[in-house]
Amino acid sequence: MLQTRVGKRTGISAVKIAVDMVREGLISKQEAVQRIGPEQLAQYLYPIFDTKEESKSNPLGKGLPAGPGAAAGKIALTPDKAVTMKAAGTRVVLVRQETSPDDIHGMNAAAGFLTARGGMTSHAAVVARQMGKVCVAGCDAVEVLDAQSVRIGAKVFREGDYLSINGSTGNVYEGDLPVVESEIIQVIQGKLDPKQSDKYQRFALILSWADSVRTLRVRANADVPDQAKIARGFGAEGIGLCRTEHMFFAEDRIPIMQKMILARTKEEREKFLDQLLPLQKQDFIGLYREMAGFPVTIRLLDPPLHEFLPKREDLMVEIAQLELTGRDGARLEEKRRLLARVEELHEFNPMLGLRGCRLGITMPEITRMQARAIMEAACELAKEGKKIVPEIMIPLVGMVSEMKAQKDLIREVAQETMKRYNVKLTYLVGTMIELPRAAVTADRIATEAEFFSFGTNDLTQTTFGFSRDDAAKFIDFYQTNNILDADPFAVLDREGVGALMKQAIAGGRKSRPGIKLGICGEHGGDPSSVEFCHQLGLDYVSCSPYRVAIARLAAAHAALAEAGASAAPSPRKQSVPRTKAKKTTAKKTAKPTKAKSAPKPRSRSRVTRKKR
Amino acid sequence: MLQTRVGKRTGISAVKIAVDMVREGLISKQEAVQRIGPEQLAQYLYPIFDTKEESKSNPLGKGLPAGPGAAAGKIALTPDKAVTMKAAGTRVVLVRQETSPDDIHGMNAAAGFLTARGGMTSHAAVVARQMGKVCVAGCDAVEVLDAQSVRIGAKVFREGDYLSINGSTGNVYEGDLPVVESEIIQVIQGKLDPKQSDKYQRFALILSWADSVRTLRVRANADVPDQAKIARGFGAEGIGLCRTEHMFFAEDRIPIMQKMILARTKEEREKFLDQLLPLQKQDFIGLYREMAGFPVTIRLLDPPLHEFLPKREDLMVEIAQLELTGRDGARLEEKRRLLARVEELHEFNPMLGLRGCRLGITMPEITRMQARAIMEAACELAKEGKKIVPEIMIPLVGMVSEMKAQKDLIREVAQETMKRYNVKLTYLVGTMIELPRAAVTADRIATEAEFFSFGTNDLTQTTFGFSRDDAAKFIDFYQTNNILDADPFAVLDREGVGALMKQAIAGGRKSRPGIKLGICGEHGGDPSSVEFCHQLGLDYVSCSPYRVAIARLAAAHAALAEAGASAAPSPRKQSVPRTKAKKTTAKKTAKPTKAKSAPKPRSRSRVTRKKR
Repeated sequence: MLQTRVGKRTGISAVKIAVDMVREGLISKQEAVQRIGPEQLAQYLYPIFDTKEESKSNPLGKGLPAGPGAAAGKIALTPDKAVTMKAAGTRVVLVRQETSPDDIHGMNAAAGFLTARGGMTSHAAVVARQMGKVCVAGCDAVEVLDAQSVRIGAKVFREGDYLSINGSTGNVYEGDLPVVESEIIQVIQGKLDPKQSDKYQRFALILSWADSVRTLRVRANADVPDQAKIARGFGAEGIGLCRTEHMFFAEDRIPIMQKMILARTKEEREKFLDQLLPLQKQDFIGLYREMAGFPVTIRLLDPPLHEFLPKREDLMVEIAQLELTGRDGARLEEKRRLLARVEELHEFNPMLGLRGCRLGITMPEITRMQARAIMEAACELAKEGKKIVPEIMIPLVGMVSEMKAQKDLIREVAQETMKRYNVKLTYLVGTMIELPRAAVTADRIATEAEFFSFGTNDLTQTTFGFSRDDAAKFIDFYQTNNILDADPFAVLDREGVGALMKQAIAGGRKSRPGIKLGICGEHGGDPSSVEFCHQLGLDYVSCSPYRVAIARLAAAHAALAEAGASAAPSPRKQSVPRTKAKKTTAKKTAKPTKAKSAPKPRSRSRVTRKKR
Repeated sequence: MLQTRVGKRTGISAVKIAVDMVREGLISKQEAVQRIGPEQLAQYLYPIFDTKEESKSNPLGKGLPAGPGAAAGKIALTPDKAVTMKAAGTRVVLVRQETSPDDIHGMNAAAGFLTARGGMTSHAAVVARQMGKVCVAGCDAVEVLDAQSVRIGAKVFREGDYLSINGSTGNVYEGDLPVVESEIIQVIQGKLDPKQSDKYQRFALILSWADSVRTLRVRANADVPDQAKIARGFGAEGIGLCRTEHMFFAEDRIPIMQKMILARTKEEREKFLDQLLPLQKQDFIGLYREMAGFPVTIRLLDPPLHEFLPKREDLMVEIAQLELTGRDGARLEEKRRLLARVEELHEFNPMLGLRGCRLGITMPEITRMQARAIMEAACELAKEGKKIVPEIMIPLVGMVSEMKAQKDLIREVAQETMKRYNVKLTYLVGTMIELPRAAVTADRIATEAEFFSFGTNDLTQTTFGFSRDDAAKFIDFYQTNNILDADPFAVLDREGVGALMKQAIAGGRKSRPGIKLGICGEHGGDPSSVEFCHQLGLDYVSCSPYRVAIARLAAAHAALAEAGASAAPSPRKQSVPRTKAKKTTAKKTAKPTKAKSAPKPRSRSRVTRKKR
């Protein structure tokens, strides 16, 4: 856990000292890189409270430091209110019992979120880290009283009152503490000239030195062009995961999405999918443009459909109320119809239900629409002379038969689209490895899949049998009671999940030597997990845009550690047992094959990278 | 799927012909065993409709044949009503939208169940097969209209109307079709003298021949003494799975259980656990007595606690209604308090939540109470001169640290209990292997666990990422569209789940040569899965009491097939790749170790078995 108030200066000054020492010829660039802990770079990125002001304030309560940085603003208790307040030019802190995908527009509008429930991998926490927003999650002191008021600690606040949250420490304060913005972010957003920021200069320098030693590529998880732009600003070499469903939660699209889901026939469903097609295509064109030739991996629709519909229990309560009052019979009828469909879609364990490729297999028209949008967007850019290599990713594959069914469908649409545009494109169809069955049958799946991307969030869920949404409470207990060393959703579990990854890599390479391998779970931005991915011989990690710099430095550390270990006979501390690593990662044997299919220069400047 | 009307006579007459041919010296006993398909034996066990009467009736609708046999009786639409009607001497068919653990008392009272929703592994279907009740599940023609009426096909029925269901074909009929009971069941229940039943004689003879060739032991899953008695009647050689939670759903216990769950402190919780202790102990004494020295594996509390509480959405609706009417403020307050606790326990994916050993680790007083009940019961019987070897099984272990924490706790309670009784007992503490992480880290887990029992229901869930409660809809689609050959919850998936089992066996034997290995998922009663378990070299399978005879015959087939394959150079059709099986099952190398710890006579008559 980050100790911002202490560590902040340490991280930034550590970089300053290292860069100065290189300039003075006291240490080498490699030594400079080695002296900076990857996590220390995070301290460059967050807005922080004015230290003097914060030290004068008493916290109202403390939650989990789930999205680092500092945010202050007026309290909004609903996502709609957050949007309205933001539109009126107000800085907003969204306070919720917990957040759900329905809240995305409000989260987007807020500077930070404070939740009463949820752990380090709750919805609020994950979205915060992805969006680069401040978040304090699972704060016991928070009690939402009604739609307009919330108790925090001993005090009751109303919507519009000022609140300050420190997502690096978990502290929550009354009032509007002054916030200082990160210079790095200002440069990336084009608000500050890089030449005017010594901090940015040193930050970029250390990273360029890191790039010259690392072999692992770093991509970002980004769903919309804005995120892609920031990812590029941090040096991401492509998008490793674009979650297409996030595009459907936008306000202008969710009604069409809902109609599509409520449709009773394939024909009706296709009608609404046709309306989504041009919107989805525009999304992809935007992403391709931002990534300027870097690879873009697009995952087909993944979440269970009920996530796009109103909540079942809300409908039940509303119907019970309408029945009792006897008013508005038409509305009652409509709600009953809606509930009937929601009941049909209701699942006891949605995480293990009708989602992922199961959607595209049972409703192939969804896959067809998405494949068409992906390929049409690429064809249109190709006509402009831009080279795009879409990587189409099938989620939640457990059987080669699923992979084949979806791939055949995509190939058919792709051929038809390219013919229509009279364009010939290279594209890949691959899969997430996020189920234990996919890992142990990877040799079979690789006969169809052209790349693997480890979805370690889901793989951790099913390997442990831990629900990300529910496990926080006992994971905390487990850590306190020495059952678990670390939260496996934050730090990749090498012994269990890692063992399955090794099997998948061995199986994948057996059937398809040189198969492209990446990781797109939250772990892609965790230094220890990045080290493990390097040891496994993955081609890239993909992480939140705001973690890209950290992953670049972590990848450099991993490469230097490996070089050091092979040079010195005494190996450094390493969590993966030596013998196992030798048996399955097969880094050395795999290298020639990889080099054959995709030559990878060891030293990559910005310029050469852009040409790729 | 069983074709009862055709197959019934075929199965029973196949046995008759085979036995006659052995008696006439035309074929050997082994050949007789080989001529009977294990599934054919099932036809001996079910009550059937009078063939002539059934052929005259037109089905109202058709569902899944989820619990074979025939049942006719008066419709009950709630479990309470089923209990009342049964108490009044009425034969009952329970008709429900779907069933849940709350319905157990009504299911117990009914001759059969008909549900509108759910697949072959829905709650109703699994309970039906375990209880040996007739079940037609997921029948689209059924629409529960209100608490007193149900539409089936075109016709509306009221509670108390007669209905007949054929769980072997899925057909549902109007009226009270005459049912003929199985002679085998009559003998086992002591209602018929075995000497008076030729059918029983031949059934027992074929099975005694099967026993003389099989090496795999067959146990039963039984939670209460009645089930254990039936299991013994079918020749079960122990209990492989006693689900202790089923004991808490009984009417006199659920209120105590609920109070225990609602308790806010450890002390309060312990008070209610103390009340459960003597009841639980009596359960175990009953089971031990029935099993007369055969091993009894008792699993500690497994399901998420909210299963014992009222449903969240029911509470929400009731509160909304109470709020609107403004009546009964005290009741409203009580319901709100209850809902608050239910909300705390609410999980998005309860299957992956706070359940299994996570309960016993976060609330060690539960494990302590259960361990005490198990050991006190065994000590009391030991004082009577009966030898009991309890096998205490920790559910849902994924990490050796979990296993160790629970084992240490149990050992402590066991030592204390034995000292108090002044008795020295042998007992084992082992675990389910039901999570992929347990399978891949089995070598570590076996340093603590003294036996492994494969919980293949849960292992299939997490390996595939399929929720048993929800997957029926797409599994059906997958089967129709050739994505899946068979429902993996019915027939063990050798390629995926099987690969993990092999890893677990190899790991377990590495750390603890001769470790006792069994399976207690629903697969233990499926012939193809039994064959695979034999090939893996497990010590036993455990299945529903009513599947024990089938498993005994299937185990004999597997042994004969193996002998045939090793005798003849051309191997017979086998789904497991030969090389893999050789590498990990290690049947031959394990045998000597096993023989040392527990000598296993190849030929076991009833008499020698009882002495064991």
